[in-house]
Amino acid sequence: MRVEIVAIGTELLLGQIQDTNSTWISERLAEVGVDCHFQSKVGDNLERIAESIRRSLSRADGVILCGGLGPTQDDITREAIAQVVGEELEVDPEMVEKIRVFFAARNRQMPENNLRQAYKPRSAYFIEQRKGTAPGLICPVGPKVIYAVPGVPVEMRDMVERSVIPDIVSRSGTASYIGSRVLRTWGFSESALAELVAPRLELLEDSRRATIAFLASGAEGIKLRITAKGDDREKVELILKDEEEGLRSILGENVFGVDDETMEYAVGERLKAKGFTLAVAESLTGGLISSRIVSVPGASQFFKGSVVSYATSVKRNLLGVSSEEVVSKQAALEMAKGVMSALGAEVGISTTGVAGPDSQEDQPVGTVWVGLCIARADGLFTEAKEFKFPSGDRATIRSLTAISLMDLLRRRLS
Amino acid sequence: MRVEIVAIGTELLLGQIQDTNSTWISERLAEVGVDCHFQSKVGDNLERIAESIRRSLSRADGVILCGGLGPTQDDITREAIAQVVGEELEVDPEMVEKIRVFFAARNRQMPENNLRQAYKPRSAYFIEQRKGTAPGLICPVGPKVIYAVPGVPVEMRDMVERSVIPDIVSRSGTASYIGSRVLRTWGFSESALAELVAPRLELLEDSRRATIAFLASGAEGIKLRITAKGDDREKVELILKDEEEGLRSILGENVFGVDDETMEYAVGERLKAKGFTLAVAESLTGGLISSRIVSVPGASQFFKGSVVSYATSVKRNLLGVSSEEVVSKQAALEMAKGVMSALGAEVGISTTGVAGPDSQEDQPVGTVWVGLCIARADGLFTEAKEFKFPSGDRATIRSLTAISLMDLLRRRLS
Repeated sequence: MRVEIVAIGTELLLGQIQDTNSTWISERLAEVGVDCHFQSKVGDNLERIAESIRRSLSRADGVILCGGLGPTQDDITREAIAQVVGEELEVDPEMVEKIRVFFAARNRQMPENNLRQAYKPRSAYFIEQRKGTAPGLICPVGPKVIYAVPGVPVEMRDMVERSVIPDIVSRSGTASYIGSRVLRTWGFSESALAELVAPRLELLEDSRRATIAFLASGAEGIKLRITAKGDDREKVELILKDEEEGLRSILGENVFGVDDETMEYAVGERLKAKGFTLAVAESLTGGLISSRIVSVPGASQFFKGSVVSYATSVKRNLLGVSSEEVVSKQAALEMAKGVMSALGAEVGISTTGVAGPDSQEDQPVGTVWVGLCIARADGLFTEAKEFKFPSGDRATIRSLTAISLMDLLRRRLS
Repeated sequence: MRVEIVAIGTELLLGQIQDTNSTWISERLAEVGVDCHFQSKVGDNLERIAESIRRSLSRADGVILCGGLGPTQDDITREAIAQVVGEELEVDPEMVEKIRVFFAARNRQMPENNLRQAYKPRSAYFIEQRKGTAPGLICPVGPKVIYAVPGVPVEMRDMVERSVIPDIVSRSGTASYIGSRVLRTWGFSESALAELVAPRLELLEDSRRATIAFLASGAEGIKLRITAKGDDREKVELILKDEEEGLRSILGENVFGVDDETMEYAVGERLKAKGFTLAVAESLTGGLISSRIVSVPGASQFFKGSVVSYATSVKRNLLGVSSEEVVSKQAALEMAKGVMSALGAEVGISTTGVAGPDSQEDQPVGTVWVGLCIARADGLFTEAKEFKFPSGDRATIRSLTAISLMDLLRRRLS
């Protein structure tokens, strides 16, 4: 089965927002073995949206429309679909009620505008909206089909996972299955990684049982995506498992996670395994590490909290930093120890450095010290490490610092 | 003049990499007043690339092809262009020499593959490559034109700015200029905002001097984009200024920023204006607010730091929270006061609540209390506010809490 994607919104054509929805949907389609040969972006223009829909249906078996289902006047995806299928839009009383209830439940007045979302072409049916007010649409066109989902990513993802993909799979019938697995690595340059993996890639080129793609992901490290296609899930899973083992034997501890497992997740797992709690002292990173740690469900099992000691006075008063220079090995160590005892944790980590735009204590932008402190049964383990990141923007320096320190902790906890 | 963009690469259709190039090019086109009505993505397939080029040329005056100029066998953009213009590819001896020199200068052996990059249709001419080896192409087709640039962003951007845009501008002749301005709002639902602005939209529909678009941006609020087109920059700036004033008179304090101005930026500006410093106590948000505050350059002028009191013990020991229940009005107020005095700031804010997945103290997921404490000349101002967010994912609840609290602080500081 072939499906195309059409992202709708003038703001996309003006480059004011990035179309991440098509990318995400593409991945889902690939995973279920559906081919996607064309994708397009079109503005909030009735004729051009209709043209895009017709074009896609002329080439493929289905089209997924993303965006233009909101309550405002420039949300005209419903109208475009009606034009393509040659039907009038008609209001659905049940949907009107649902939308009223949505607002009532939040003690909010329902703007009349929102009633536009209760309209659909007669032959279409709604995809239930569970995150907002705009329902999606599934509109059969002879043997083909038009799907419409909102442009708000969280709403789009929910509907695509819950309704669109299952409907496509049931229509496509074919049992062909594509599975993929991502190994997340930290510690290699892309070329070094490529050299290490090269022999394995050559084997695969002969066997053709799977493909391996490199996805350089900046401060998230380099991802290795293994993709295998087969008649059924079991066969594909077997190949993926085999390839994963092969790659792990080459990459060892540099693999920190699989698929959606983040570095903070890996750190959390190791802390729980050791029964340690964590405290963080953040100067340079200003709370970034903490906010990433708490993004792990169940973080309260191992995370005590942190002190963001942005001002020097906070370093001194709350963390007992005595070091003259606050961007230094001593300061990093004092911060890690200080936060560990202040919060009563077994593990303390710290960051201090120069994020820019200005240099500090005559140290260039990108100079970073991290500290690490673990209360082991055999005594206190402490370590400090300096990084000199290419002076990029503040956000990049912070992200690189955060993952570098979490990776260091991960390795020391194993 | 109308130009379309075609991003080329199977990895784009598989969702393995995000097409940021089209977005970037779109912005450049808008800046010079060139309309872009359609954009598309197509894989490394000769027939389908050629079809995309023909389709674009049938609708627009030019098309920019992005990607597929590399040295490998699946880089076939050159071949597709040749097919569309009905010419053979011919090698350009000068370009062969240039590519040899590129490698020699880096003491690298030139793979024979790279010579493919020295080929072009007879009637096309090269765009000099200054960052890598693949030259770009400008290929006139009657009165229309095909541009081809590499998919590597740094190479693409250099060629588009240096050659493609200037060529488009000289072809389009018209000096027409498009400018836009984004007003960022917090406090409205999209439809409520639409109703408020409706009268103004109607006026614009008659005058046609500008357009206003709504960009619902989740936890960043709703953006109103004003776009105006005119003969020159001055005229356009005047219209934008006028429209901004008109909208501000309707939306008042709900407008917190313009273009790239974030809520944390707005908060920072008001703190600096008052000469106040800020301390943050984060439980629910776990460092998110702090990391957003420090993303503002110069944050050290007003930001002291924060205490992420994830564990109850930290709330009690570092912030002096005595309240039995930690998700409560009293706890929020105690946290705000506690962090204010512990860090020696004039302003303290706090968050406590239930991010899920499990409920806490019998309170449902999405229950949030925020606290606010300002040491004014006329005494201590304190305020607490409860939010009940639809129990979504943890990240959404945290983002909504962060911006809601920063917005509250912004309003109280004015």
